[in-house]
Amino acid sequence: VDDRRIDDLEAYEEIRRLAADYAHGFDKRDLDLFLSVWGDDASWTTMPEGEPSVGRDAIRATCEATWQAVGDTHHWMANHSIRVDGDTATGTLDADCEVTDPDGTWFRVAATYADTYGREGGTWRITGRTTQIHHYLPMAGG
Amino acid sequence: VDDRRIDDLEAYEEIRRLAADYAHGFDKRDLDLFLSVWGDDASWTTMPEGEPSVGRDAIRATCEATWQAVGDTHHWMANHSIRVDGDTATGTLDADCEVTDPDGTWFRVAATYADTYGREGGTWRITGRTTQIHHYLPMAGG
Amino acid sequence: VDDRRIDDLEAYEEIRRLAADYAHGFDKRDLDLFLSVWGDDASWTTMPEGEPSVGRDAIRATCEATWQAVGDTHHWMANHSIRVDGDTATGTLDADCEVTDPDGTWFRVAATYADTYGREGGTWRITGRTTQIHHYLPMAGG
Repeated sequence: VDDRRIDDLEAYEEIRRLAADYAHGFDKRDLDLFLSVWGDDASWTTMPEGEPSVGRDAIRATCEATWQAVGDTHHWMANHSIRVDGDTATGTLDADCEVTDPDGTWFRVAATYADTYGREGGTWRITGRTTQIHHYLPMAGG
Repeated sequence: VDDRRIDDLEAYEEIRRLAADYAHGFDKRDLDLFLSVWGDDASWTTMPEGEPSVGRDAIRATCEATWQAVGDTHHWMANHSIRVDGDTATGTLDADCEVTDPDGTWFRVAATYADTYGREGGTWRITGRTTQIHHYLPMAGG
Repeated sequence: VDDRRIDDLEAYEEIRRLAADYAHGFDKRDLDLFLSVWGDDASWTTMPEGEPSVGRDAIRATCEATWQAVGDTHHWMANHSIRVDGDTATGTLDADCEVTDPDGTWFRVAATYADTYGREGGTWRITGRTTQIHHYLPMAGG
């Protein structure tokens, strides 16, 4: 019984680190770190009405295309509400973001992610992430 | 001995989720989720000099009145410093908020919450939350 | 075996609280709380090209000098990616900050900290923190 409780507690730690490493990998343009958070068949929907990118190759292509389309980005993740159930889990979390568009204007973006996670080969990964965008607000310093 | 240590670790997880679900419930106007974080006799003081709302009915009324008074809100919670001691706990955490007033102007609000938590019927709840407001700053995009 | 797993899980909790208390201590100008997060021989590098402040006395001096040089500050910490390995650990985390300069202008500062932690006398402390500053952006409300 205790082993299962410890398993679950370790799952929460790993899942929290996935959410952190997603932000570090994307914002610092560390492709290996960014790709390490995704499961083998993960699905990533970056825009609310968009098609998902499915699988590591598609996720890599989407990531690299986004990096080419925007300037500096910052994702400050908050409010990570996680529920672990055995070898899968769900999570909801909010992002407070700063993004520059190609002409250098800064925007603040408020977003929410709905996530699924799974344990694959003993390691927790993000198996699905869909993005909801609440607003873009231009910043004074843009 | 280990059971107690595992109990405490689970308490930290539950308490973190309460803080997240408070933000998700309030900002996404999910009343059931918002009310689920509060203990039966919880006290919520939303303004530094204000009277507390005590009990679930009063908290619901305050929540609904606030939703009517403001536009969109975002609470990004950070710096959650939790200390669990048996069946009660304390926490301090900061909120970086965006709030619209009725005419659509955006403000950034910096706030700090002082919390108490308790285990009621096996489930952790917020038993008290008092709010300190540091500042309101208008945003360029307002 | 389980004891070691529980030790590690407790380490994650303590390290998360150190990061929170760093922010609470610094922003609320609670010197005792701020100094409590540091190990005896800790090294704190506040500016990317700066010299580190080494040891509690030097850290106190740097903290007090910074408090004299700036107005209100807010550090909202996010994306805390922690890896515990026995009695030491590493962490990376981002800060979304608001800082006032002496004439009252508000800036938003995006920063990343690279941390080391250690267990000293049974208690986890920050043993090293180096700061990377991504940008300062003036705010509309300044």
